[in-house]
Amino acid sequence: MSDSRPIAIDAMGGDHAPHEIVAGAVHAVRERGLSVVLVGSPRVLYEALADHDATKEVPIVRAEEALAMDEGALASLRRPRSSIAVACHLVRRGDAAAVVSAGSTAGIVATGRLRLKGQQGVLRPAIAVPIPTLPNPTVLIDAGANAEVKPEMLVQFAHLGTAYAELAYGIETPRVGLLTIGSEAEKGNKLVKRAHELLQASPGLRFEGNVEGHDLLTGKVDVITTDGFTGNVALKTMEGAVRYAFTELRAAVTDSRLARLGAAMQRSRIRELRRRLDPEAYGGAVLLGLNGTVVIAHGSSRADGISAACKLAADLSSVGIVSRIGDKIATTHRSHRLW
Amino acid sequence: MSDSRPIAIDAMGGDHAPHEIVAGAVHAVRERGLSVVLVGSPRVLYEALADHDATKEVPIVRAEEALAMDEGALASLRRPRSSIAVACHLVRRGDAAAVVSAGSTAGIVATGRLRLKGQQGVLRPAIAVPIPTLPNPTVLIDAGANAEVKPEMLVQFAHLGTAYAELAYGIETPRVGLLTIGSEAEKGNKLVKRAHELLQASPGLRFEGNVEGHDLLTGKVDVITTDGFTGNVALKTMEGAVRYAFTELRAAVTDSRLARLGAAMQRSRIRELRRRLDPEAYGGAVLLGLNGTVVIAHGSSRADGISAACKLAADLSSVGIVSRIGDKIATTHRSHRLW
Repeated sequence: MSDSRPIAIDAMGGDHAPHEIVAGAVHAVRERGLSVVLVGSPRVLYEALADHDATKEVPIVRAEEALAMDEGALASLRRPRSSIAVACHLVRRGDAAAVVSAGSTAGIVATGRLRLKGQQGVLRPAIAVPIPTLPNPTVLIDAGANAEVKPEMLVQFAHLGTAYAELAYGIETPRVGLLTIGSEAEKGNKLVKRAHELLQASPGLRFEGNVEGHDLLTGKVDVITTDGFTGNVALKTMEGAVRYAFTELRAAVTDSRLARLGAAMQRSRIRELRRRLDPEAYGGAVLLGLNGTVVIAHGSSRADGISAACKLAADLSSVGIVSRIGDKIATTHRSHRLW
Repeated sequence: MSDSRPIAIDAMGGDHAPHEIVAGAVHAVRERGLSVVLVGSPRVLYEALADHDATKEVPIVRAEEALAMDEGALASLRRPRSSIAVACHLVRRGDAAAVVSAGSTAGIVATGRLRLKGQQGVLRPAIAVPIPTLPNPTVLIDAGANAEVKPEMLVQFAHLGTAYAELAYGIETPRVGLLTIGSEAEKGNKLVKRAHELLQASPGLRFEGNVEGHDLLTGKVDVITTDGFTGNVALKTMEGAVRYAFTELRAAVTDSRLARLGAAMQRSRIRELRRRLDPEAYGGAVLLGLNGTVVIAHGSSRADGISAACKLAADLSSVGIVSRIGDKIATTHRSHRLW
């Protein structure tokens, strides 16, 4: 199955917008053979494309406004013509297959909910982030869309994450874990204790019980469901700790001449590993549960990260993730009713 | 100031109890010159001490029961003569300076609250964990004692953590951060938004605003206040990520002969770094806010970890952490009343 519609790229969102975003778009077209459209200020984007001799390869859709990186949910209401809003509209109207943005997460989530609307039966859209465990990534959901949730939502996040793990990584009946502070069922706060009961009684889910913070990287489960507050703290903690370990290691191994020699020998292997653990390299987060696919690239993304995010967006839309999630939620609702 | 009373060690708690606990006690006495007492089954402990020829050096206090590692809060009510309960009683009666246990955290917290009681004015005791940033550690509090909290408790945790950072690490007016999902004041769930307001209005605290998951290891603040659910998830995520990064790096550098050579050269530096980031090496977590100091060693602690925990317990009791926290809480209450 393939989708010939382009990926709509929010060219004005991100720490390195618009230049790195444009460079990423050009890379996606030239190196990955994807079809994309850049959304933003035509004058600025035309000039940036001209630097790549790509004015004829990448179309531009006008959006005169942009959400600043520090603008949150409210700003998206005030700016119906922002680049992220226009990108969502293109998907809504069927003119684009999916959205990619490196803008403020809160702004993307709010705009996505407002412009694309949640899928029928979905209580709340949620952010899924693949954590680069091997052989398959573990999908963490919700990584930050919903700071305040109800136990039922944690069950739905598990369904969204399950659909994502199946479609994006080909995992059959993904194992689901609930993120909390101990392996026993009664460990945690009221929210997770109730969610544990609901998850155990949920048809269509392979619930394996509680997982803890250190399980994010062990590959113990394929999907980790959590509220967006805890998930965001955990994800950023993980990224920070990995970055810290690498930095400290580099300092340790470049501290002596002999060690520097050793380091040089290993450089390429370590670079490989770093790349695997780099949140940009694996394409970014996906906002699931909307009537359209929205890929949220890291705010600090450069061209490579944007191009990877476009690839992810194209792949997800070509396997029809939105309709698959729709089916899944519909089935779940039916089983709940029968049950 | 010094305290000649011994440290009461729960000899029956921990994955490697009693042998590694006993070995740790012997190490604390012989290598650190500390005074300790082992609490547990006399027969078992006598035999274990005999292995070290240390039956005359380390006294034993009888406790015929023990909390299993998977026993939680309720079990502590049912077992008034467990080793952790008896250790707490020794402190309560003034016969010991502090408690060290590597048993189940939930069991230690529940027993501590029941046997030692919270200090006057303390809403809830909380677990402080030093994260090994440089030059000073960052104190994460609460790392798991309270899964469900109120905003006022997050303010008190900040006070407890501040007292701890001052006394344990000599940090003057420690900087306090609130763990949430964005740097702006309005980022987070209801709990942290309200806590942010309260923290800003709190006398006697140097509140620097919000921090995020990646700030656990950057040393941006000296104290990070959070609820025990989020704190526990973050701490375990951090430990897991650091462990993962080291394991992967080792795999990466031992993958080729040339790389192995390089690795050998760096081994000692990396060992040093590993040690610094090893939760056991820095002595463990402290349960603050009780009428007595309780150091919670990692469940997987071996002799070294237990010995380090005894040192921490002795240091904290010799600087009078309990009375200092008492003063701090009393002052805070007074200022609140005036205010």
